[in-house]
Amino acid sequence: MEFFYQIDETNLFSPQVWFILSIFLFLVQHVHSFQFEELKKYIDSHQEEYVETLREWVAVESVSTDVQRRPDLERMMDMTAEKLRDMQGTVELLPDGTTIPLPKVVTAQFGSDPSKHTVCIYGHVDVQPASKEDGWATEPYNLTDINGNLYGRGASDNKAPVLAWIHTVEVYQKLNMELPVNVKFIIEGMEETGSNGLEAMVSAHKDSFFSDVDWIVISDCGWLSRRPALTYGTRGNCYFYAEVRRTRVQVEGPKEDLHSGVHGGTVVEPMTDLIGILGKYYTLISPSGEILIPGIEAAVAPMTDTERETYQSIEFNTEDYRRKIGVDRLMYSSKVDLLAHRWRQPTVSIHGIEGAFSDPGSKTVIPARVVAKFSIRQVPNMDPKEVEKQVKEHLEAAFAKRGTPNKLKVTMVIGAKPWLADPQQPLYEAGKAAVQRVFNVEPNLIREGGTIPIARTFQDVTGKPIIMLPIGGFDDGLHSQNEKMSRYNYIEGTKLFAAFLHEASQIKN
Amino acid sequence: MEFFYQIDETNLFSPQVWFILSIFLFLVQHVHSFQFEELKKYIDSHQEEYVETLREWVAVESVSTDVQRRPDLERMMDMTAEKLRDMQGTVELLPDGTTIPLPKVVTAQFGSDPSKHTVCIYGHVDVQPASKEDGWATEPYNLTDINGNLYGRGASDNKAPVLAWIHTVEVYQKLNMELPVNVKFIIEGMEETGSNGLEAMVSAHKDSFFSDVDWIVISDCGWLSRRPALTYGTRGNCYFYAEVRRTRVQVEGPKEDLHSGVHGGTVVEPMTDLIGILGKYYTLISPSGEILIPGIEAAVAPMTDTERETYQSIEFNTEDYRRKIGVDRLMYSSKVDLLAHRWRQPTVSIHGIEGAFSDPGSKTVIPARVVAKFSIRQVPNMDPKEVEKQVKEHLEAAFAKRGTPNKLKVTMVIGAKPWLADPQQPLYEAGKAAVQRVFNVEPNLIREGGTIPIARTFQDVTGKPIIMLPIGGFDDGLHSQNEKMSRYNYIEGTKLFAAFLHEASQIKN
Repeated sequence: MEFFYQIDETNLFSPQVWFILSIFLFLVQHVHSFQFEELKKYIDSHQEEYVETLREWVAVESVSTDVQRRPDLERMMDMTAEKLRDMQGTVELLPDGTTIPLPKVVTAQFGSDPSKHTVCIYGHVDVQPASKEDGWATEPYNLTDINGNLYGRGASDNKAPVLAWIHTVEVYQKLNMELPVNVKFIIEGMEETGSNGLEAMVSAHKDSFFSDVDWIVISDCGWLSRRPALTYGTRGNCYFYAEVRRTRVQVEGPKEDLHSGVHGGTVVEPMTDLIGILGKYYTLISPSGEILIPGIEAAVAPMTDTERETYQSIEFNTEDYRRKIGVDRLMYSSKVDLLAHRWRQPTVSIHGIEGAFSDPGSKTVIPARVVAKFSIRQVPNMDPKEVEKQVKEHLEAAFAKRGTPNKLKVTMVIGAKPWLADPQQPLYEAGKAAVQRVFNVEPNLIREGGTIPIARTFQDVTGKPIIMLPIGGFDDGLHSQNEKMSRYNYIEGTKLFAAFLHEASQIKN
Repeated sequence: MEFFYQIDETNLFSPQVWFILSIFLFLVQHVHSFQFEELKKYIDSHQEEYVETLREWVAVESVSTDVQRRPDLERMMDMTAEKLRDMQGTVELLPDGTTIPLPKVVTAQFGSDPSKHTVCIYGHVDVQPASKEDGWATEPYNLTDINGNLYGRGASDNKAPVLAWIHTVEVYQKLNMELPVNVKFIIEGMEETGSNGLEAMVSAHKDSFFSDVDWIVISDCGWLSRRPALTYGTRGNCYFYAEVRRTRVQVEGPKEDLHSGVHGGTVVEPMTDLIGILGKYYTLISPSGEILIPGIEAAVAPMTDTERETYQSIEFNTEDYRRKIGVDRLMYSSKVDLLAHRWRQPTVSIHGIEGAFSDPGSKTVIPARVVAKFSIRQVPNMDPKEVEKQVKEHLEAAFAKRGTPNKLKVTMVIGAKPWLADPQQPLYEAGKAAVQRVFNVEPNLIREGGTIPIARTFQDVTGKPIIMLPIGGFDDGLHSQNEKMSRYNYIEGTKLFAAFLHEASQIKN
């Protein structure tokens, strides 16, 4: 009351008041702008150092899908913890929720001011397998700069983004600027195998580590085109092993591969059975892309007109995309259909077969045990438990029809749900403002065809709003040969993160 | 005339003449028996040395199907030549008939007495690939003796038999016994890839190296059961690569594997196409073993009643066989059907897929280029050229039906014909006598499901009679994990070869 009285006394609409207010607002804005210029300058001048750290991280073959590589993965987790500790973060290694010995999850905290918002950054430092023989132009674990692109396994997925976040905190520290928000990190090492055990770990720390977290940020994805993007949804993934073997029990005798000349014709071959059930015209997927496992398509949420309009407005050139991935014809010709089938429709991919002859040359063998590996990307409203049942029933029925003496065993080894957020919420407005500040454009609002299982887990367990803030390029080749991260995205991405922390601090509760 | 007169003078039927003749015959027989006892004794007392040499040979990873192993293969050829040279053989390294640099063929000659028969021994010292990870109980290139079985890649196929032949000549030499026949060797290093170039080489030396050869002996196979065997036929083999890739030309851009999440749903996947054409219920082979490529079954020579009766008399226990190879049920239940489908009916085996994910774990990839490898065993009267045409047309038609933008390329990389001999000829009688002498049983007269392409080549080019004289056991696991040669077969086999040289020398022209 007193305050209003005073204002009233000097006249609310007097030019003096307006002048003072304008100066004040200008200063506030100017001070911030100035700070951001300083952050940018610091980041630009330290880019060689950032590339060097990325090189050290890429050099560690932290493949989580191969247990042989577990020591490398453990080393990678230690390096991550060490880096955060050096920055005076409160670092804790939390066991995941499994009883088997998996790499611990690295958590860290910078600042605990209760008057500030708290942003939790999620990332992972494990990678997909890679070897030169797969067709890499460079050594996959030796970061190689070619025309400003940094080639190396895990460069984009997810080591550079994790480092960019770490560097963001470091920049504020080095410039003696106060962090605009409290920052927490949660860095795992089992993402590429489906984040085993992380859900249980998140549940266990829901009321401790996550209790003061306001938002969770994930930067484990990429832009759709050259336009920066905010991501509001991901597909899930159900990964299956379909194993066919000659006998049920492995230990009962010599059940080796057989010479196809000596024995071919006398045995029903597991490989023939396996390919028979996968390949029969209408077993998994039709040549035109329709999934033929009964029940799968029926569960998919129908596409709304609003969705269709949103997709129509997205900056994405289908012809560029076709050329980039190197096909003569895409499965769908329209932008909307193409985006829909990347983001919000399920798909089946057969990844390969374990146990059969896979080397160059011409071995004449009848494999004794073969395991087909395929996966079905999950979208709302599919339920992995249902999908598991549908796939098993479908394959077992096809197998039974063959009347073979071989044995089939279908196992779902990953069952990750999709994630979908509302891109109209304030958190996304902060993201848009940060993109605007660094790149001077409106971001594409996109979804992601790949799976970041933890997004859905965070949503279900913590209930906190989540944003995906990608800095990877549209052509980074995640999981493929010649994965890369461009210097531009790495460095400008660090600036984006620095800006985002400021914008997030401005969100009204 | 004079001679008969003398006999007449002393009375042809007098007891004295009979006594003298008996003494003479006894001595002839006794001298030979004595010689064979000596050979046997020498072989027995040198068995450790023979095992040691086999160990050295197995240690060389002379894999011919993998060009990376070419230096090992060259070393193996050199070791073979060296060994024969040490024994004072006339050794010559002959280039094969190809223009590409393949390992030379090792030839050697022991004796050139025009009054003796000349036996030419064929063998090979290259091996199939093997690694511990495939499921070997021992290191595949470290010969390991377990209960009298010598485990190691190439032990039975074909290093021990080649060494047994070499040792046979050596034994005669060491005992200062005259070789009963001239012996020639022709040892190659490309058998496991289909004896590339050997046909041209044999043609080129038809009138030189092969001109004085009476018979060709091949010991590149095994017994059917515990009863020793002579082999009078082999199946041929047509080996196919069916390659599916996203684009026709590899060089036009980055045609890498794709992330199945990021891109799954937008591309027609090569792996789906490949499995689609191979696996469609009626594409290659029915679940009950019928080959469904039009024209294949029609070319097969009908089974005669005589054949059926011969098969019926062979010592072979189907239940033992079923247990040994570890299946719940064989493709056929009767002995005759089973033998027929091992020896004189074609079969299709799908060996594996190159280019897809084949390691343990769960990589989420859409392979850009996948190559299925399958083969069709050839029998009389199939023609590989015809088979090639039939397979290509069949797969291309199935592929065309899919309407996919991907490209298919079907290549026949091996086209080996079957071989069939008449087991009633004198050469086989010599074989039977040798088996009788060493093992005291009648041999099984068998055919071989596998392919020894050179048998057919020898027959077509040189026109010389061929015998297969196997010493491998029925359970040696050729081309499989845990390949072995038993000490018993290796050592008794050497005796069999020593006896065979004598029996062959007795054949009347």
